[in-house]
Amino acid sequence: MSLQIALTKGRLEESAVKMLGSCGYGTEKLQNKGRALVFQDTKKDIRYFLAKANDVITYVEHGVADIGIVGKDTLLEGGHDYYELLDLGIGKCRFILAGLPDHDPLKKVGHLRIGTKYPNVTRTYFRNKGLDPEIIKIDGSVELGPLLNLCDAIVDITETGTTLKENGLIIYDEVCQISARVIVNKASFKLKRDEVMQVIEDLKKAGKTC
Amino acid sequence: MSLQIALTKGRLEESAVKMLGSCGYGTEKLQNKGRALVFQDTKKDIRYFLAKANDVITYVEHGVADIGIVGKDTLLEGGHDYYELLDLGIGKCRFILAGLPDHDPLKKVGHLRIGTKYPNVTRTYFRNKGLDPEIIKIDGSVELGPLLNLCDAIVDITETGTTLKENGLIIYDEVCQISARVIVNKASFKLKRDEVMQVIEDLKKAGKTC
Repeated sequence: MSLQIALTKGRLEESAVKMLGSCGYGTEKLQNKGRALVFQDTKKDIRYFLAKANDVITYVEHGVADIGIVGKDTLLEGGHDYYELLDLGIGKCRFILAGLPDHDPLKKVGHLRIGTKYPNVTRTYFRNKGLDPEIIKIDGSVELGPLLNLCDAIVDITETGTTLKENGLIIYDEVCQISARVIVNKASFKLKRDEVMQVIEDLKKAGKTC
Repeated sequence: MSLQIALTKGRLEESAVKMLGSCGYGTEKLQNKGRALVFQDTKKDIRYFLAKANDVITYVEHGVADIGIVGKDTLLEGGHDYYELLDLGIGKCRFILAGLPDHDPLKKVGHLRIGTKYPNVTRTYFRNKGLDPEIIKIDGSVELGPLLNLCDAIVDITETGTTLKENGLIIYDEVCQISARVIVNKASFKLKRDEVMQVIEDLKKAGKTC
């Protein structure tokens, strides 16, 4: 039976494609892609979709894709109607709490405003600390929030910390570690179990050698 | 008193900057920008921010910006704690209902699935027709939805219809017309009324000559 695999565009794309290639999948077209978003594997009966992280979850939940590769950050924020089967160990970064120097948000007295692309992750983090800040959803350039006094601090993902540093922000706490995960559609896990588990096993091996 | 104006990055950016320039604002830096997102007007006491559409609303609602220029599509979808003062008549496009040929979603019998970046606009549109479809939030490449059988049809914005045509989709209905609007922070409208109204008047005149 043919398989459909959804890959996250952007940050995770290159390492996921490389990982698939290293364990015998025909992902050449994905490496030299133009504007196309749908690709046929050159060696196996697999079709790939490139999509935004949230859409990878949507594709898997609705059965458009049997398998999805997507960051734990996106999984933590929303969607849950899938099986999460493997931590690929690629695309590693972390959720952090950051703000301007001498403005530790965890020590602020009074109303606290946190800017983030991830309101659910942020709410959970502060709830575990017994805090209930105002959460301001920001779509882009979250790091500008404290500079523009839109918020006191931000919860965001960071890989190297460069963008934070460039904007004069410092890290006050680590919320959690994240990495790329393999998720599987619930029906596909029953109906295409052998094919799905073959991909999982291949990726597991590739992860050990990477 | 100095003013802060938030402009929407992308589709609206060029025409909004041109419009401001045509009525005597010093927007040269905005025309030759690098990665910067904050700009000082070269003639007036105004600071500009370039932000994503949703963030323009957030900036205005939270008083980071006194004035925002943003598409009616984004205003219709969310946020409402501001005054909408002017239709700039630029960035014109329309919300449409589109799908594959011979698959009119309004005539479909049984479960109907609509893919969209704009769940609220979509819900309101169908509610007015007495319909209650499943709404599937898609973040990017909405036009792929019907091709991948993720949904039966989409509600999206289109300017020229080119992307729809390229994907073999046809328009079944027009949901509404949209264009760029000027929104104002409620407190700024009281505290900086003269400065705000001056910008509105300038833009109103520029709109007539454009």
